[in-house]
Amino acid sequence: MNNIIASLIPGPVSVPDKVLAVYRNNYGSPDLDKDFLDLYNQTEQKLQQILGTQNRVIMQTGEGMLGLWGALKSCLKPGDRVVSVCTGVFGYGIAEMAESIGATVRKLSLPYNETVSDIAELEKLVAEFNPVMITAVHCETPSGTLNPLSEIARIKRTHGVKLFCVDSVASAGGMPVEADRHLIDLCLNGSQKCLSAPPSMTFVALSNAAWEIIDRVNYIGYDAFKPFKNAQRDFYFPNTMYWHGIAALDAAATLILEEGLEAVFKRHRQAMEYCIGRVTQMGLELYAAPHAVKSPSVTAVKLPANTDWAQFDASCRSKGLAIAGSYGPLAGHVFRIGHMGSQADIRLLETGMNILESVI
Amino acid sequence: MNNIIASLIPGPVSVPDKVLAVYRNNYGSPDLDKDFLDLYNQTEQKLQQILGTQNRVIMQTGEGMLGLWGALKSCLKPGDRVVSVCTGVFGYGIAEMAESIGATVRKLSLPYNETVSDIAELEKLVAEFNPVMITAVHCETPSGTLNPLSEIARIKRTHGVKLFCVDSVASAGGMPVEADRHLIDLCLNGSQKCLSAPPSMTFVALSNAAWEIIDRVNYIGYDAFKPFKNAQRDFYFPNTMYWHGIAALDAAATLILEEGLEAVFKRHRQAMEYCIGRVTQMGLELYAAPHAVKSPSVTAVKLPANTDWAQFDASCRSKGLAIAGSYGPLAGHVFRIGHMGSQADIRLLETGMNILESVI
Repeated sequence: MNNIIASLIPGPVSVPDKVLAVYRNNYGSPDLDKDFLDLYNQTEQKLQQILGTQNRVIMQTGEGMLGLWGALKSCLKPGDRVVSVCTGVFGYGIAEMAESIGATVRKLSLPYNETVSDIAELEKLVAEFNPVMITAVHCETPSGTLNPLSEIARIKRTHGVKLFCVDSVASAGGMPVEADRHLIDLCLNGSQKCLSAPPSMTFVALSNAAWEIIDRVNYIGYDAFKPFKNAQRDFYFPNTMYWHGIAALDAAATLILEEGLEAVFKRHRQAMEYCIGRVTQMGLELYAAPHAVKSPSVTAVKLPANTDWAQFDASCRSKGLAIAGSYGPLAGHVFRIGHMGSQADIRLLETGMNILESVI
Repeated sequence: MNNIIASLIPGPVSVPDKVLAVYRNNYGSPDLDKDFLDLYNQTEQKLQQILGTQNRVIMQTGEGMLGLWGALKSCLKPGDRVVSVCTGVFGYGIAEMAESIGATVRKLSLPYNETVSDIAELEKLVAEFNPVMITAVHCETPSGTLNPLSEIARIKRTHGVKLFCVDSVASAGGMPVEADRHLIDLCLNGSQKCLSAPPSMTFVALSNAAWEIIDRVNYIGYDAFKPFKNAQRDFYFPNTMYWHGIAALDAAATLILEEGLEAVFKRHRQAMEYCIGRVTQMGLELYAAPHAVKSPSVTAVKLPANTDWAQFDASCRSKGLAIAGSYGPLAGHVFRIGHMGSQADIRLLETGMNILESVI
């Protein structure tokens, strides 16, 4: 990190000491020691609270993309119909991933600075195409936007779509995901965003409808969900679990629940408001369209005209601020300020915004 | 770990303090900070030395099975012919994995307590079947055996087999793998065996022949190797890398190289000899056949007649010794003593063997 005093990269974020502390220990064998199973079960319960679900939550060793691939490959067969809500890099990315495994995908294609608003268009698409799965990204990190899940959930219910697959990697733990209320069958998450753990764990909440399809599709691979179906009951996991990684998830979830979900969500909203307020005062322009929903975990800002991203980034870093550029078509045009997990801290943001103000 | 004073489970093993120390730090962004790329490159060089290869070594976030799946899925298309050397749980397992993705597999099927000795039989199979890939497991952890790679390599060369795929998860870092001398195209490894790091990282050495086929097969997924082809050159990894995990691999590799490869290998051989000596003196019988090659990293022992594994295990644990049962057809009949990585320590083994002696 060198001289960085405000790390506001939108994940991985700084890991709190209480989470890092789990790595001081040596544990036993996750294959043999009952203590591991107890930890796994207890962590599952905490993650259920954070996601707002009574569905089972599986945890796998790997970065968040593991859960995205695992969900699509575990549930889709070639020719299956999918409707993908695309409002940014990951929304379009998931559509492409589904296509790459043979699904037939129809996209609700919106510009990268939008969130779903004309729900009638989505409803028409779903009614006509009759998909087995709707995919959506809750928080589009590269755009700093948040898609409304409740409206999509209503369409899922009305049209009897079997599976609603939501990437909540950058929202879970920082704002309500409410997987059950939003009828989410596959709720996909990673450890390094609002949970403030290192980027080594994926966790996914799976509905009974999802488990039925997972059973039938019978996909096999490292990312496969099926081997986790009876893993706890039989104490037999498909590979050697990462005890430190589960312990880190547990510690991270504990911190969130001890603070209280409402308090954590409020802290994130306030961080967003502070951040948007400061950048607007500086005369900078938000990337998200005015009517698009902004995410409490990350703010995307248009790079000022005639500004070179590499130079701008270097200037910020030389003064101790780490921010991020963006991806895909947004690269070089948008920069991003993370305020997720341990970053949702007004004092830290104040330090960062003061540096930003001195650079622009 | 409670009261365990000698943990001799054959992986994950106790992680040395110098490796755990990397988890005390917070790092920057592996997507953006050049320091991460430097660490990745430097770790690659150390792993090359340990594996005896000049081939590139990729590192992925996940348990060792990630590399096994990644290798088969990245290189095989349905209908491709594979010859699998099967001398234990993992040898047969890899054959099944290859079959599950559509390959046509012929097995050299040996009992689980054997290692390859009649090389003529393998040569006949390869000559007749003309496979694109030969698979073999170097150390069969569940059996405590070690397959001779040099003879298989000779057959690969003689018959122009494109790919030699070796699972060296439980041997690398504890004995010579010599990937280049043994013409290994896909050399698959995990972090939690002889390297004594936590079970979160996979690393794989890939030959040019392997990269060519990976390019052509063009497999996509979390476990795919192709996105790593230019990841270092372009500083663009397929997902957010696990900085702590790479740092742990680096620290573990550094410990091995500082001790010196020859010294480390000797320490493992001596640990094996001590372990075999003690269990033989106790009147216990090795699981491996007399002429089978025993592994310097793990010893498998027949459970004494009329002994219940669960009770035996509980007795050992109550006195402070953790050992492991075995898998598949060996479950309930064989127990295993790990002497890999941090366990290859005569004093630790002495403590463990004294407890074992008091229990049998």
